[in-house]
Amino acid sequence: MTKGTHKTVLLTGFEPFGGESVNPSWQAVHQLDGCHIAGHTIRTKELPCEFDHALTQLNRAIDKYAPALVLCVGQAGGRADISIERVAININDARIPDNAGAQPIDTPVLAGGPVAYFAALPVKHMLNDLHQAQIPASISNTAGTYVCNHVMYGLLHYISEHQLNCRGGFIHIPYLPEQAMHHSGAPSMSALQVIDALKVMISSALTHDTDLLIAAGTTH
Amino acid sequence: MTKGTHKTVLLTGFEPFGGESVNPSWQAVHQLDGCHIAGHTIRTKELPCEFDHALTQLNRAIDKYAPALVLCVGQAGGRADISIERVAININDARIPDNAGAQPIDTPVLAGGPVAYFAALPVKHMLNDLHQAQIPASISNTAGTYVCNHVMYGLLHYISEHQLNCRGGFIHIPYLPEQAMHHSGAPSMSALQVIDALKVMISSALTHDTDLLIAAGTTH
Amino acid sequence: MTKGTHKTVLLTGFEPFGGESVNPSWQAVHQLDGCHIAGHTIRTKELPCEFDHALTQLNRAIDKYAPALVLCVGQAGGRADISIERVAININDARIPDNAGAQPIDTPVLAGGPVAYFAALPVKHMLNDLHQAQIPASISNTAGTYVCNHVMYGLLHYISEHQLNCRGGFIHIPYLPEQAMHHSGAPSMSALQVIDALKVMISSALTHDTDLLIAAGTTH
Amino acid sequence: MTKGTHKTVLLTGFEPFGGESVNPSWQAVHQLDGCHIAGHTIRTKELPCEFDHALTQLNRAIDKYAPALVLCVGQAGGRADISIERVAININDARIPDNAGAQPIDTPVLAGGPVAYFAALPVKHMLNDLHQAQIPASISNTAGTYVCNHVMYGLLHYISEHQLNCRGGFIHIPYLPEQAMHHSGAPSMSALQVIDALKVMISSALTHDTDLLIAAGTTH
Repeated sequence: MTKGTHKTVLLTGFEPFGGESVNPSWQAVHQLDGCHIAGHTIRTKELPCEFDHALTQLNRAIDKYAPALVLCVGQAGGRADISIERVAININDARIPDNAGAQPIDTPVLAGGPVAYFAALPVKHMLNDLHQAQIPASISNTAGTYVCNHVMYGLLHYISEHQLNCRGGFIHIPYLPEQAMHHSGAPSMSALQVIDALKVMISSALTHDTDLLIAAGTTH
Repeated sequence: MTKGTHKTVLLTGFEPFGGESVNPSWQAVHQLDGCHIAGHTIRTKELPCEFDHALTQLNRAIDKYAPALVLCVGQAGGRADISIERVAININDARIPDNAGAQPIDTPVLAGGPVAYFAALPVKHMLNDLHQAQIPASISNTAGTYVCNHVMYGLLHYISEHQLNCRGGFIHIPYLPEQAMHHSGAPSMSALQVIDALKVMISSALTHDTDLLIAAGTTH
Repeated sequence: MTKGTHKTVLLTGFEPFGGESVNPSWQAVHQLDGCHIAGHTIRTKELPCEFDHALTQLNRAIDKYAPALVLCVGQAGGRADISIERVAININDARIPDNAGAQPIDTPVLAGGPVAYFAALPVKHMLNDLHQAQIPASISNTAGTYVCNHVMYGLLHYISEHQLNCRGGFIHIPYLPEQAMHHSGAPSMSALQVIDALKVMISSALTHDTDLLIAAGTTH
Repeated sequence: MTKGTHKTVLLTGFEPFGGESVNPSWQAVHQLDGCHIAGHTIRTKELPCEFDHALTQLNRAIDKYAPALVLCVGQAGGRADISIERVAININDARIPDNAGAQPIDTPVLAGGPVAYFAALPVKHMLNDLHQAQIPASISNTAGTYVCNHVMYGLLHYISEHQLNCRGGFIHIPYLPEQAMHHSGAPSMSALQVIDALKVMISSALTHDTDLLIAAGTTH
C-alpha cells in the first residue's frame, strides 16, 4: 500500500468496444504494469466500456493505489497521433450503446457538476517531450461524449472533490495496425510506439510542476 | 429599438483571417440582414477576428438590439458540414496571430470564469431540422481555441452574467467553393446553402423550448 | 440526326448504385438536355450501373447522335471537387456487385485492348476554366476499377477503334448535399454548381484544340 | 554476378525530396541489403529523386544484378497503409521540381511507349499475404505523375522491352512517425513494420506464379 508516499502511477486502459476484438489502450497499458518511471511504480487497471461502472472501478483503483498521477488511455479510431485531451465535459451522448447496452443521450456525467474540467496535467510539456522523442502527438480539445470523456470527467471530478494530491488526465491513441487493416485507409500506430509515448508522458507529467507556453491550439 | 419586446435576432459573422480574402460567415450572414423569421427581425454584425475586441463589439450589439437569440457564425476550413457547437471553453490558445497581431497562449477568455459553457440552444432540434431540410450538419464538441471559441464563451458568459432572456450559441461553416479551390481537396458549401441553413436554425432555435433527445455524439 | 455536322454533345450520367436513392451525375446531367453551348446541342443519356450493358447503351447513343464531344459523368462519393479523369485502365475489379449483380474481378474491359487510354480532352484547359469560374476542381489519375472506369475505357476505345471525329472523357463529381448528410463528414457539391461546372467544361472542351501546359499532377 | 541464376532481388528506395530530411523508402530498404528471402539475396539501391536520371540508375542496377524480382519503393506522404501499385502511366506531370530542378509537365516517360503498364506482380497474393501478417495494405490504382510513377513505368518498360525473366512493380509507403509529426494529423508507419511488409511482399512475389482472384478495387 503506497498511500501517503505518493509513489504510484495508475494507468488505465479499456476493454474492446464497438465490434473490435482488442482495445489498443489496454494492449499497451498492461505491458507497463510494474514498471518504474521517475521513481514511481506503474499500476494498471482495465476499465469496462460502460458508463458509471467504469467510474466505480476507476475510483476504487484510485482509493487502492493513492497514485500521484492517473493517466486514462482510450482508443480513438481514425486519429493518427497520440492526443492529449485538454478538457472533459459534463455530458453523455452515446452514438452507440456501451458494453452493458446503455445509451445515455444528453445526460450529465454528474448531475450538478461543473460544465467541464481541464486536464490536471502539464499538457504542453507532455506534447513537447513527445515531439522531442519523435512521436506524432497533438493536443485535442474534445474527448468526445462517450465513455472516454465520461471517465476523464469523473476522474477530474474525483480528484477535485477529494482534493487529492494527484495529477490526472486522458490520452487518446490510434488503432493498432491489425485493427486499421479492417478500416479501409485508417491510420494506425504500433503498440511499441504507444508504449514509448506513455513512458514519455508519465515521466513528463511527474517532473514538470508548471506548464510550458507553446501554441498548440486549433482555429476550430 | 426592440429592447423589451425581444423580437430581434442578432446574427454575427467574422472578417477574413488566416490569409483568406473573404470569410464565408460574413458572406452568408450579411445577406440575411433585415429578414423576418418566425416573427423576429434579423440584425447582423461583422466581428473583427481579434481576441477581446470581438467580444467588446459583440456585447455592444447585444446591448443595442436586446435580441431573443444570438447566433455567432465562423469559418471552419476543412469541415464539410454545418456544425452546431455544443460547448465553449475558457481558454485562448492561438495557433496563428489574430488580425491585430495578438497570439495568446493558454490564457483564460475570462479570468475566474467557469471552465466551460454549454450552448444555450436546442442543438438537437436544430440538427434535426437541418436534416429534414436535407442539409449536411452535425453537433461539434469543440469550437477550437481561437477567436471563434473565444466569442462563443464570451457570448454565453454575457448572457449568463446579465441573466438575459436570450438564447445563444455558435455555428461553424465550411469554406466557400471559391476558397476551397485554393486548399487542395478541401470540402466546401455554397453560400446559398449556408443561408438556407441559417434560416432553418434560427427558426428552430426560436420555436423549441426544450430539446430533442436524439443521439448525436462521438466516441472520441 | 446530326451525323456529319458534328454539332451535338453527348452527356451521360448514371443511375443510382451502392444503396443510394439518387445519382448526382444524372441529377445534374438531365437538366442540361437540349441546352446549347458553343454552337452545340446537348443530348443526355442515363446509363445503367452495369458492366458491359452500360457500354452497349453508350455506344448506341454515340451512333445515334454522332457527337463532337462525349462527357460521361459519375459519382465519386467522398471526393470534394470536380475531378477530370486523365486515364482509363483495362481492368474491372468490382468492390461491390453492379446493379445487375455482376462482380467481375481482374477481368479486362476489353480482351486484347491496350492497358490504358488517356482522356481525349484538353484536361488542363478544362481545369483552368473551372478555376477561372471559381469552381473547386482537380485532375484525377484514377477513375477506379468499377463501372465508371469501365465506361471511360469503353468510350475511348470506341472513339479510337472507329476513328471518330469526337473528343471524350470522364468527369467524377461529389455527393449531393442530401446524400452527404447520410455519410458522416463527407463533402458535397450542390447540383447547381455541378451544372455550372459541366457547362464550363463542355465549352472548354469544344473550343480548345491543344492543351495548356500547367502543372496539375500528384507526387503519388 | 548472379546473371542467369536469377537468385537476386533488387530493392530500391529514394533519396529525400520535397523538403524532407529522410525518405522512409530508403530508410527501410537499405536495412534489407544482403538478407535472404525464399532462396534469393536482396540487393538494394538508392535512386535519386530525378526524372530520367533515376531510370538510368535503375536500369544499370538491373543489368548488374539480373534480378528475378525488382521492387521499387517510394514515399506516399498522407497515405496510411502499404499500397501496392497496380499500374504506371506514360506521363510526367510534376507538381514540384525534382531534386535536379526539373519540372516536366505532360511529357511522356517514354516517347512512343504504351499509355500504361500493369505491375508484373501477383498484387492480390501480396495484398492477401500482408493482411495475413496483420499489416494494413491496399491496392492503389495510381502511383501519381511524379518520379515514382516515372520509375515504375520505366522499370516495366525495361522488363518488357528486353523480355527479362523478371517480375517487377512499385510499392508506396506512409511517412515515418518522425516525419508525420511535422505534418499535422498525417498517418505514419514504423520502419520496422515497413521492413516486415517488404519481406512479406518479396516472399509472396517470388512464390506465386498466378494471382489470386479477390476483390480489391475502388468505385472511383
